[in-house]
Amino acid sequence: MVSHKTTRRNLLKTVGIAAGAGLAASYLGACARKEDTKPAAAGGTAQEMASQQSSGTSGELTPDLIDKAHETVVKQFPAKTEGEGCLPLEPKIDGDVKVFELTCKEVDWEVKPGIKIKAWTYNGTVPGPLLRFKEGDKVRIVIKNELPESTSLHLHDLRVPNKFDGVTYVTNPPIKPGETQVYEFVATAPGSHMYHSHHNAYEQITRGLAGGIIVDPKDGRNYGETQDIMILLNDGALGYTINGKQFPATKPIVAKKGEIVRLRLMNTGQLYHPFHLHGLPMKIVEIDGFPLANPWMCDTISLNPGNRYDAIVKADNPGVWAFHCHVLTHAESPQGMHSMVTVFIVQE
Amino acid sequence: MVSHKTTRRNLLKTVGIAAGAGLAASYLGACARKEDTKPAAAGGTAQEMASQQSSGTSGELTPDLIDKAHETVVKQFPAKTEGEGCLPLEPKIDGDVKVFELTCKEVDWEVKPGIKIKAWTYNGTVPGPLLRFKEGDKVRIVIKNELPESTSLHLHDLRVPNKFDGVTYVTNPPIKPGETQVYEFVATAPGSHMYHSHHNAYEQITRGLAGGIIVDPKDGRNYGETQDIMILLNDGALGYTINGKQFPATKPIVAKKGEIVRLRLMNTGQLYHPFHLHGLPMKIVEIDGFPLANPWMCDTISLNPGNRYDAIVKADNPGVWAFHCHVLTHAESPQGMHSMVTVFIVQE
Amino acid sequence: MVSHKTTRRNLLKTVGIAAGAGLAASYLGACARKEDTKPAAAGGTAQEMASQQSSGTSGELTPDLIDKAHETVVKQFPAKTEGEGCLPLEPKIDGDVKVFELTCKEVDWEVKPGIKIKAWTYNGTVPGPLLRFKEGDKVRIVIKNELPESTSLHLHDLRVPNKFDGVTYVTNPPIKPGETQVYEFVATAPGSHMYHSHHNAYEQITRGLAGGIIVDPKDGRNYGETQDIMILLNDGALGYTINGKQFPATKPIVAKKGEIVRLRLMNTGQLYHPFHLHGLPMKIVEIDGFPLANPWMCDTISLNPGNRYDAIVKADNPGVWAFHCHVLTHAESPQGMHSMVTVFIVQE
Repeated sequence: MVSHKTTRRNLLKTVGIAAGAGLAASYLGACARKEDTKPAAAGGTAQEMASQQSSGTSGELTPDLIDKAHETVVKQFPAKTEGEGCLPLEPKIDGDVKVFELTCKEVDWEVKPGIKIKAWTYNGTVPGPLLRFKEGDKVRIVIKNELPESTSLHLHDLRVPNKFDGVTYVTNPPIKPGETQVYEFVATAPGSHMYHSHHNAYEQITRGLAGGIIVDPKDGRNYGETQDIMILLNDGALGYTINGKQFPATKPIVAKKGEIVRLRLMNTGQLYHPFHLHGLPMKIVEIDGFPLANPWMCDTISLNPGNRYDAIVKADNPGVWAFHCHVLTHAESPQGMHSMVTVFIVQE
Repeated sequence: MVSHKTTRRNLLKTVGIAAGAGLAASYLGACARKEDTKPAAAGGTAQEMASQQSSGTSGELTPDLIDKAHETVVKQFPAKTEGEGCLPLEPKIDGDVKVFELTCKEVDWEVKPGIKIKAWTYNGTVPGPLLRFKEGDKVRIVIKNELPESTSLHLHDLRVPNKFDGVTYVTNPPIKPGETQVYEFVATAPGSHMYHSHHNAYEQITRGLAGGIIVDPKDGRNYGETQDIMILLNDGALGYTINGKQFPATKPIVAKKGEIVRLRLMNTGQLYHPFHLHGLPMKIVEIDGFPLANPWMCDTISLNPGNRYDAIVKADNPGVWAFHCHVLTHAESPQGMHSMVTVFIVQE
Repeated sequence: MVSHKTTRRNLLKTVGIAAGAGLAASYLGACARKEDTKPAAAGGTAQEMASQQSSGTSGELTPDLIDKAHETVVKQFPAKTEGEGCLPLEPKIDGDVKVFELTCKEVDWEVKPGIKIKAWTYNGTVPGPLLRFKEGDKVRIVIKNELPESTSLHLHDLRVPNKFDGVTYVTNPPIKPGETQVYEFVATAPGSHMYHSHHNAYEQITRGLAGGIIVDPKDGRNYGETQDIMILLNDGALGYTINGKQFPATKPIVAKKGEIVRLRLMNTGQLYHPFHLHGLPMKIVEIDGFPLANPWMCDTISLNPGNRYDAIVKADNPGVWAFHCHVLTHAESPQGMHSMVTVFIVQE
């Protein structure tokens, strides 16, 4: 199952449990309870913070205001927002073919409480839905364009027939507004991949037209993971986002002590984002869907545009661990943490 | 032989053959034929496109104009321009010494049809000529400076005697305008390297003073390659370039199905350029001229300034595959693909 | 011992000896002598250069002035400045606990001759003092905040108990001005690490609040190194710095021919800095403190924010070798080399 398996209820439970881990409990516990019972108030504060954050400078901030701003944002985490991306898309079955339907359309996407931005989406979410195939699957993707301009579909690194590569005027005509195109192929490339527009792509991808793909290997290759979490990074019109959201609206990763968590990190943005996980080393096991003969350990993975890194994390150190871009302007300002920040919670 | 082995004639043939691969044929076939028979017209269009592209924004572009702009640029590919860099330089023989003569001079360099920029060059091309040695060769490089300011020659990673390292005032005096310097050394470092100015280098390299070096290993080490292609990336005064050219004037890589192509990717620019090859996985076999004990596979190579990556590509998937920087602002705009884009054509 | 083991006296000796290596001698020898005997004059020149350099453009520079500017800066190297960071901090012993005391305070930090910038420091130096533990050590860090705003202490990748992770309001309250906090843990993560603020971190780290940590492995793991040198890179309020200094005030690495030098390269800045060592290949043996099963060789290491790379260099090629960031705007301008440049001197 690819999802954080985390509901509002069990996150509260989580944080309650995590309380044993130290100060985090009082802060996150308080925050989650408050934010959960007073969403309006929290939303209001979030908006103030957002406007402050958007200034991006410390302005007249006194040392006390800096502290207060930091505390306020953390207490909003995990903040409720409308919409969630990267959820599995159930295919329709047509004989021996799995059919996935994607519709490109504009929606108002809430990147953090009270902040909605016009996004270009697949099926109304940022990132688009997760497409999951089994190696050898016959796949049909039916993509309809309801955007005001043409688009295309590039299945990044899936090694499909050239005529389905989605590079407009090189391999495919554009999908004009109102048009539908059909892509058919056999899923032959196991691993973590992504799909995105390849037409006016700088604008279309940074507005949201990107999603994740997993091709499960026929040989059942795995790393003993008990959770499998996809994390798409993006930068551009929606700001610096993790799965389409900005801190404090990002989603925590939650694991019980001893779990093996697989992270599928992908960068669909235009900048590099060296992602640093506190307290829990990461073992890089696959790059661009290819297993490494000699995996290596690290605490920071430099995610360049276009690359995917599969990393294995052993949840052996209880607590609430920050997980953020180490280009700090993508993660913090004098108004506190923002954008590319979430936490990895290990429950006792 | 280090070159694309591609003439105008066999490119057309190529595209004709590639026609079997789908839409690419009609587009590229049409484009090549048209561009080939009506260079003036194509050049004219290219200039319009160039001026549009230089704006870098979509301005008043309607969705239809965006499509048209994309199509127009693709149809110009591969566009004819004056000058080609990275061609092998034949040495003169002086006893047991191979003598390579380099002259630094300014030329008007055509980066794409109709767009000429004052470039600083070695022997009049960007990149400079390819210098190819055999491990153990006695080499003499005679470099003359016809530029209006001093320069120097740094043989990046060749491990030459310190007095030939080319860092002005640290190991060498500058080569002043009109002066000539002689570098002598034994080629001891097999692999892919580069040479460039190390004096006022930010300006001089980004204007074109860089070139590739190959030292063929004595032990004949190779990866079964049937083609060996050097690709120097640069950014700066000449824009974002592949071997000194901007799309649509970049050169396609053309291979018959089953060929093993070695790419020697080098970044002489100031930005990182994660290069993504569609449809054909790349195996990284050497970094900075050093073989990897455990090569790894990928579809995107993050080329940082100063690094060289040797990658092996098995041409097993027929078609016309885009090969471009995944920092999309280096490769596309609403006016279509530009700058750091080419294609890898696999013929049936 | 972690330090360059280099005093003014033996650097002069070094350069004297290095004279055999070629032009470097006359230049560096002259520079060191001159700069050493006429510090005032050198300082004055340094100031002029600094102001020129700060302009960052060639302005009215003629070719001759460009040469002169380059020569002048090189002759100032290694320029004397007040203050040196990254020196080992001797712990106090409390029973079986090693106690390290850090005080956060603002000082005027001389980044190059005559250029003092208000820096935020640990114990008055940039970077902060080196903290060196033995794997298994019981460690107590007592940190006092004498800055005008709150701060925190994050022990990057040390895998400490969550309550000592130093992320304000997530795991710890901020250390307010005048306050002291105590961190206690067992050093369990061998390798090269760093410590830095995690509160308003973009501003605080780039102003100087970062330092290096070494945890010596219990099993005595090593690479035969005869020298062990820590190099912290930073960018921001203090410019582009190597261990808190800008060229020509950076410190040379000095080794006798045949020595094995371990470089612990860390990037606490916000930009990537691909560091290129001339003439001497580097073997990357550890990333983020984790040994590589298959080390690889290179001449340029791309240091992303948050990562640490341990590299082994065999000092087998005598001479004075430039060691600099290959993003050339971080290392040179028409006014000559600046900022992220030093040299690796191999003595016969």
